[in-house]
Amino acid sequence: MRLPGSTTTPAEHGLAERLAASGLVRDGSTADALRWFEDLRSRSYTEVEQVALEDLVGWSTHPVTGDIVHDSGRFFVVEGLDVRIPGGPVPHWRQPIINQPEIGVLGILAKEFDGVLHLLMQAKVEPGNCNGLQLSPTVQATRSNYTGAHRGRGVPYLDYFMDTAPHSVLADVRQSEQGSWFHQKRNRNMVVEVRGDVPVLDGFRWFTLGQVHELLAADDLVNMDARTVLSCLPFTGRGVRRSIAAGDDWFRDALLRSCVAEEGSRHPDDEVLSWITQARSATDVHTRRIPLSDVDGWVRVDGRIRHETGRFFDVMGVRVVARGREVDSWTQPMIEAPGEGVVAFVVRRIGGVLHALMHGRVEPGYIDVVELAPTVQCKPENYSVLDPRARPPFLDLVLAAAPDRIRFDAVLSEEGGRFYRTRNRYLVVEVDPAEELAHPDFRWVTLDQLAGLLRHSHYLNVQARSLVACLHSLVCAPIPAPEART
Amino acid sequence: MRLPGSTTTPAEHGLAERLAASGLVRDGSTADALRWFEDLRSRSYTEVEQVALEDLVGWSTHPVTGDIVHDSGRFFVVEGLDVRIPGGPVPHWRQPIINQPEIGVLGILAKEFDGVLHLLMQAKVEPGNCNGLQLSPTVQATRSNYTGAHRGRGVPYLDYFMDTAPHSVLADVRQSEQGSWFHQKRNRNMVVEVRGDVPVLDGFRWFTLGQVHELLAADDLVNMDARTVLSCLPFTGRGVRRSIAAGDDWFRDALLRSCVAEEGSRHPDDEVLSWITQARSATDVHTRRIPLSDVDGWVRVDGRIRHETGRFFDVMGVRVVARGREVDSWTQPMIEAPGEGVVAFVVRRIGGVLHALMHGRVEPGYIDVVELAPTVQCKPENYSVLDPRARPPFLDLVLAAAPDRIRFDAVLSEEGGRFYRTRNRYLVVEVDPAEELAHPDFRWVTLDQLAGLLRHSHYLNVQARSLVACLHSLVCAPIPAPEART
Repeated sequence: MRLPGSTTTPAEHGLAERLAASGLVRDGSTADALRWFEDLRSRSYTEVEQVALEDLVGWSTHPVTGDIVHDSGRFFVVEGLDVRIPGGPVPHWRQPIINQPEIGVLGILAKEFDGVLHLLMQAKVEPGNCNGLQLSPTVQATRSNYTGAHRGRGVPYLDYFMDTAPHSVLADVRQSEQGSWFHQKRNRNMVVEVRGDVPVLDGFRWFTLGQVHELLAADDLVNMDARTVLSCLPFTGRGVRRSIAAGDDWFRDALLRSCVAEEGSRHPDDEVLSWITQARSATDVHTRRIPLSDVDGWVRVDGRIRHETGRFFDVMGVRVVARGREVDSWTQPMIEAPGEGVVAFVVRRIGGVLHALMHGRVEPGYIDVVELAPTVQCKPENYSVLDPRARPPFLDLVLAAAPDRIRFDAVLSEEGGRFYRTRNRYLVVEVDPAEELAHPDFRWVTLDQLAGLLRHSHYLNVQARSLVACLHSLVCAPIPAPEART
Repeated sequence: MRLPGSTTTPAEHGLAERLAASGLVRDGSTADALRWFEDLRSRSYTEVEQVALEDLVGWSTHPVTGDIVHDSGRFFVVEGLDVRIPGGPVPHWRQPIINQPEIGVLGILAKEFDGVLHLLMQAKVEPGNCNGLQLSPTVQATRSNYTGAHRGRGVPYLDYFMDTAPHSVLADVRQSEQGSWFHQKRNRNMVVEVRGDVPVLDGFRWFTLGQVHELLAADDLVNMDARTVLSCLPFTGRGVRRSIAAGDDWFRDALLRSCVAEEGSRHPDDEVLSWITQARSATDVHTRRIPLSDVDGWVRVDGRIRHETGRFFDVMGVRVVARGREVDSWTQPMIEAPGEGVVAFVVRRIGGVLHALMHGRVEPGYIDVVELAPTVQCKPENYSVLDPRARPPFLDLVLAAAPDRIRFDAVLSEEGGRFYRTRNRYLVVEVDPAEELAHPDFRWVTLDQLAGLLRHSHYLNVQARSLVACLHSLVCAPIPAPEART
């Protein structure tokens, strides 16, 4: 969309090129960044210990409903959800769920240095992180944070995101979070570019997009909030392809072409949208908030709430003593899903254009029935005792992939503010161009189409958004030496 | 989005041109259509009488909640809603509301005759219509209709919309309906093009888009469901402008340019989306379904439920005896909002491109806080007793518009299946290009941008969609003789 009489807008001019240029800059400084990170880690003091839910301070179990609530009535509530999906594989269940209706802000500040776009990232401690610090957006603020319920210090840099008028908004869209654990939670994902001086506080540092991408390949380093914000950057259009050379790397070439609408796609956009409309219209999901004490099948023992089979997840408590956060000591309930999940895109070249196989997935906490999820998103051990026919489609294909078909492979943490050491193995697995893998609940979609959907709310779930960020990181990755290539 | 290796898709090829060509065909046959309509009206027998809510048959008032429910538990429920909007002009209220969670289908069948696209429209009786028959989509089906709860005859033509695989889908998107009277109601708006023979049943007739547009200018003729489906047709792109001559009609020229992204817009698309994100993030709307008997301020007298001031709307009952509907006799509750509302787009030329001034509006029944509404949407008499400062912005501008600035003016009915003789005056009022009319809750948006938003759910409310259909009708309208022009 252009201003009348001109052919481009200032905000759009060359953004794809600028993102690509920033994505190509990795050289040398990542090692510096890791040293900075280790230095902060050695200086930050965080102790997290598990405590019984009954021993939480400032939180209590409601005598009638059994809900776990903060004494201020704010932050979030652990309550119950009754779910009915007539005709679904499990047509009725009840479960604990986190209800956090406020829309928070996940914001990354951007600024050009020497003509290269940089992102202001934060090394942030979260109680659920398995390793203390992870690389986070400039701002992660719940509304409680910025209206003072947290009784903590002000959130640095928040003003840039509350009043964007003096700046350029590169991304601004509300997106969902885990629909299995959150009831209709949304956060506002923002990237805001500033021109003036920005003071860099302790624990913050400017990174190029390429440096963030490089860190994304490391286990448990770039946090979930950073990944979802990165995925909303408009990494799409001819400018990306013009800016990056594929050499004779066919996979890279297919990735680059996948960022360009004119290169084509397996399904036209409107066909993808109609498929989503169909799925959202045809699926009945009836959810009802219920008292936590009415959630049958779940028991409260040993200071936690768990499913009577021990599967799925637990609600548990932690006590945190930290330096470098808004407040220094607190307790809170968290969700713990032990064991490593598998989150994977199966990708293939169609007409030389890379496509990801997206799953139209129902989770009870979604605000709109179905979102597009990765090809595989599950915890394999949950299925080990079930009939093999109940296994998620394509899980075995992903688990059996030959090493040379695995294009991305890292263990990444879910949000450390609500999930205790909950980790998934994120994979991109390429299959042969001839493998159609037709399934009514799945569609092949390009990166450009995913970018188009990501301009709007609630089309891609948070796991898919993480994988989109991972695919962007592969677009800009250094081209491996010939002998290392497949 | 194209197929790899090609430059256009079959589904996209020339659709804008084909819509424009169909829109230009009006000559002569509209009079025929009106005669067909009058003939059906003379043959259709419908008697609607108001009955007390206690005299409804098959519906009862729940002894505890006071909700009005059908004995089958299906169709819809009249219940209560508690609404809290902290900081809003009215921060808390309770009201009756219709809860109808099923997603129905509003579908128009399309087919080419002699190379011109035609739409299969239905002359349909609805109990709330002030004039019995109105022009309706091919299919208006609640899920109860097609799963048999209605115990009526099958819905003709429904199969084309349930299994679209053999056909071309021209539009397919779920959209909201009146957020003041419905709790999160959505319908699936579809246009499906078929190639084979289609039998034309009594009460159905093929129309060009131009003929439908001509009828849209008449009072109470094209029903709300038809208008919302028409608005979702992708009436956008260079093809529209290429196909239609503006002559020396500057308003037409600005309308045509408004359909073309490359002609520019006051705000880039991403700025419009960011404004919507901001509005949806900043506004807290807390709604809670409550028993109808807990809705204070509303009273049940004389067989209806009304606000104690007599304002807003009533819940009332009707008994219907009809021929030509699924069942021949029934009673049901309806909503009646007497008096004529005003629904208006204020439009202006910016850089020669027509823009409509859209309002980011909160209604309690929206699934996502805010939708884009017309510049003005209100019942002026509701404000007559209030402080003048409470008057809706731009209402007086619209009411005082000189006749030569009024580009569209017709009284149109709201949905006759739920609303009893509820009508609004729909207006398009052009202001001088120099009138900025800046207001934080309003933005100038082009027809192309509105078409882009209409590919997705829940951006434009149902009143705005009606006005989009009206603007499309002006794009194709015959160019008036010079002396008639302004």
